[in-house]
Amino acid sequence: MDSVQVGGRAGGGKVGNKVSDLGAGLTIAGVRLTPILVADPPLLNTQGVHQPYTPRLIVEVETAGGVTGVGETYGDTKYLELARPFAARLEGRRVSDLNALFTLADEVAVDASRVEDAVDVGGLRGAQTADKLRLSVVSAFEVACLDALGRTLGLPVHELLGGKLRDRVEYSAYLFYKWARHPAGVPAEPDDWGAALDPAGVVAQARRFKERYGFTSFKLKGGVFPPEEEVAAIRALAEAFPGHPLRLDPNGAWSVATSLEVAGQLAGVLEYLEDPALGTPAMAEVAARTGVPLATNMCVTTFAEIPEAFTRDAVQVVLCDHHYWGGLRNTRQLAALCRTFGVGVSMHSNTHLGISLAAMTHVAATLPGLHHACDSHYPWQSEDVLTERLAFTDGRVTVPDGPGLGVELDRDRLAFLHRRWLDDDGSLRDRDDTAALRAADPRWTAPPVPRW
Amino acid sequence: MDSVQVGGRAGGGKVGNKVSDLGAGLTIAGVRLTPILVADPPLLNTQGVHQPYTPRLIVEVETAGGVTGVGETYGDTKYLELARPFAARLEGRRVSDLNALFTLADEVAVDASRVEDAVDVGGLRGAQTADKLRLSVVSAFEVACLDALGRTLGLPVHELLGGKLRDRVEYSAYLFYKWARHPAGVPAEPDDWGAALDPAGVVAQARRFKERYGFTSFKLKGGVFPPEEEVAAIRALAEAFPGHPLRLDPNGAWSVATSLEVAGQLAGVLEYLEDPALGTPAMAEVAARTGVPLATNMCVTTFAEIPEAFTRDAVQVVLCDHHYWGGLRNTRQLAALCRTFGVGVSMHSNTHLGISLAAMTHVAATLPGLHHACDSHYPWQSEDVLTERLAFTDGRVTVPDGPGLGVELDRDRLAFLHRRWLDDDGSLRDRDDTAALRAADPRWTAPPVPRW
Repeated sequence: MDSVQVGGRAGGGKVGNKVSDLGAGLTIAGVRLTPILVADPPLLNTQGVHQPYTPRLIVEVETAGGVTGVGETYGDTKYLELARPFAARLEGRRVSDLNALFTLADEVAVDASRVEDAVDVGGLRGAQTADKLRLSVVSAFEVACLDALGRTLGLPVHELLGGKLRDRVEYSAYLFYKWARHPAGVPAEPDDWGAALDPAGVVAQARRFKERYGFTSFKLKGGVFPPEEEVAAIRALAEAFPGHPLRLDPNGAWSVATSLEVAGQLAGVLEYLEDPALGTPAMAEVAARTGVPLATNMCVTTFAEIPEAFTRDAVQVVLCDHHYWGGLRNTRQLAALCRTFGVGVSMHSNTHLGISLAAMTHVAATLPGLHHACDSHYPWQSEDVLTERLAFTDGRVTVPDGPGLGVELDRDRLAFLHRRWLDDDGSLRDRDDTAALRAADPRWTAPPVPRW
Repeated sequence: MDSVQVGGRAGGGKVGNKVSDLGAGLTIAGVRLTPILVADPPLLNTQGVHQPYTPRLIVEVETAGGVTGVGETYGDTKYLELARPFAARLEGRRVSDLNALFTLADEVAVDASRVEDAVDVGGLRGAQTADKLRLSVVSAFEVACLDALGRTLGLPVHELLGGKLRDRVEYSAYLFYKWARHPAGVPAEPDDWGAALDPAGVVAQARRFKERYGFTSFKLKGGVFPPEEEVAAIRALAEAFPGHPLRLDPNGAWSVATSLEVAGQLAGVLEYLEDPALGTPAMAEVAARTGVPLATNMCVTTFAEIPEAFTRDAVQVVLCDHHYWGGLRNTRQLAALCRTFGVGVSMHSNTHLGISLAAMTHVAATLPGLHHACDSHYPWQSEDVLTERLAFTDGRVTVPDGPGLGVELDRDRLAFLHRRWLDDDGSLRDRDDTAALRAADPRWTAPPVPRW
């Protein structure tokens, strides 16, 4: 697939209820889908290691008024396959017609072989259902529509969401066990972070995060080494950064017994423990027997999973990924659900670029009761599609007040990263951390669940 | 209190983050609060009878750009007392700054004697808490801000809420037992509906509703006569209007045993039974033992009441009153909560005018899964504050597509109804159905709960 243009500005298409001249200008005249591959360092998790390049999809929505809005989501093949027919359905609709995006999404058939039984990055992204796949695609279009709407009206996205409640959004440093470089013989971009494979390495990485960006809370991606080693890393962080909130996220790699043992060891040290065990029943069992709050971006990643998890008190903090949940407006609805049930809310992050960081920052600024710093993978991304990247100061991103998302697409960079996707032989177009680790260790297979 | 002007256009006040000239125009330069008394027919409920005039509060928000938005809410004294300090806090803020309305509301002190133990229209409006009182006030300001924002941007309110999913919103006929006229000696406006005090009278009223407005579903306000008489009325409606959805709402007047007996008698006849018994525990007990769905606008009227009610499966349909819930955006959040828990959603209605009907219609148009016709008291109101009233055709209101709410304030009518409020000696400024019935029957007191 080349960068796909659906419709075009001349096309125009049918105009919805014409309210005003401004209204007519809101009609979607064209949609552009550009899959790209972006550099990712050799970050370790329980399934394997990040590929040297990871797929993302950049969505551009152009209005009859000549305004373009941008969005970003997962770029694996199954997302692209859904994005194409979805984009075709958008033409002639209005960028303000956001509720209808979900009706449209329901009309797009999902290849059943892609979901339910499918392993999505080793399950790191939680349950895979047709609905969730659709929502992950919708999210990019919703953000692009909000960007275009805001640019047309001269209002920032946060104002379209009811206005910001804070001027800056706090993020946490996302610490990873990592290799110094990708496996030998694998084409990759170098990074200057070095290796982090023990407590000292993790503390050094955290120190650099703090010095560079001012982060004052830290999340360690765990599930990589035996739990006692990761407990030691957290203790080293606690000692090096007293009073700084700490989280540990083994991506469901532990049994209930192991989860409870770690929780016992780190009680009073952790702000929360993230997805120690896999699935709501296991999480509920852990939650019932520890005072350490449990967070999740794995057992609650869809609205359908909420009733059981909330009524069983299985999780105390939901980490929202606006891609999973279908965009910024659904994120606000999730936050309302959490607030109603006394469950905390914060944000999950996967490999993403500046468009999504801007989107996260806008919606986070509008959420009441945001008591935990959000995750962001952004500092690990050396590449972007923006003319000017977003900056972390004091661990915070200033909420953009310019029209729309307040960011500008760099078309040269977009073309460069798209060219990389075009040139790929297909081996990197679907993220597979297990396969990536196999490049270093041919005997590597996806570990059992629970691993420890 | 005369019609209260807070601030004024010349005032200007501080401007928030200036995004564009349009943005600066969104700043609130003044707020006007106008309490009014509107005619209400002698409609009976379990507490008594509607007063001949009922208090409402009309809110106008004027922007620095010279645009005025309107909202409407309950007008009893305790709402007015909160509306005044709230209005004062709004000046200098932006009409798009909707999330902050709730923060502002939290800052307004509520006279404790007005809530918690207070009887609000005999409990017909559900729990009274400080938060709910604040939200009922906020709702009018939120609607007025949305109206002003939409008028400024040239977009209808439904589009500010993400766009309509339907062009018309269906309402049900709201049937009441009623007297032909208010008690002798009480000043009142005449109405031409006549009495309805038995099954034949109820059927005649329903027929007239259907002929005049095209309604095809019917709700009977019960709790007035012994249950067997009301069962007979519902059976008469079912016979006269086969296939038309029917509801019965005794406002919690029945015991669990009586509720179950009525549910047994009307199984297969009722679309749902509304608030047969009072409170979540009683509703849960009824729900567990009948297949007739239960609706409520009494045991779930705040977000705080949701967890218990939903986890106990006490209600199958929540009837949202956007005033109680804090406005149109909160109504959408309530709908998301209901959708997530498999609970139906529709709308409650109390005595209200065209501003609130327009607001209800805009938000209802945006809700996915609206499977029940909404209630509306509007046909009973012969008076209004609009230059042109909204019309029911085929039992439906066409969603306004003009900027904002798409309705226009009639200032002469507003002044006339406000004059009535000014001239009142205070006896009608707080709705009291029990006292109103005492005018006909001096021995009348609020009935016990449950009454039957």
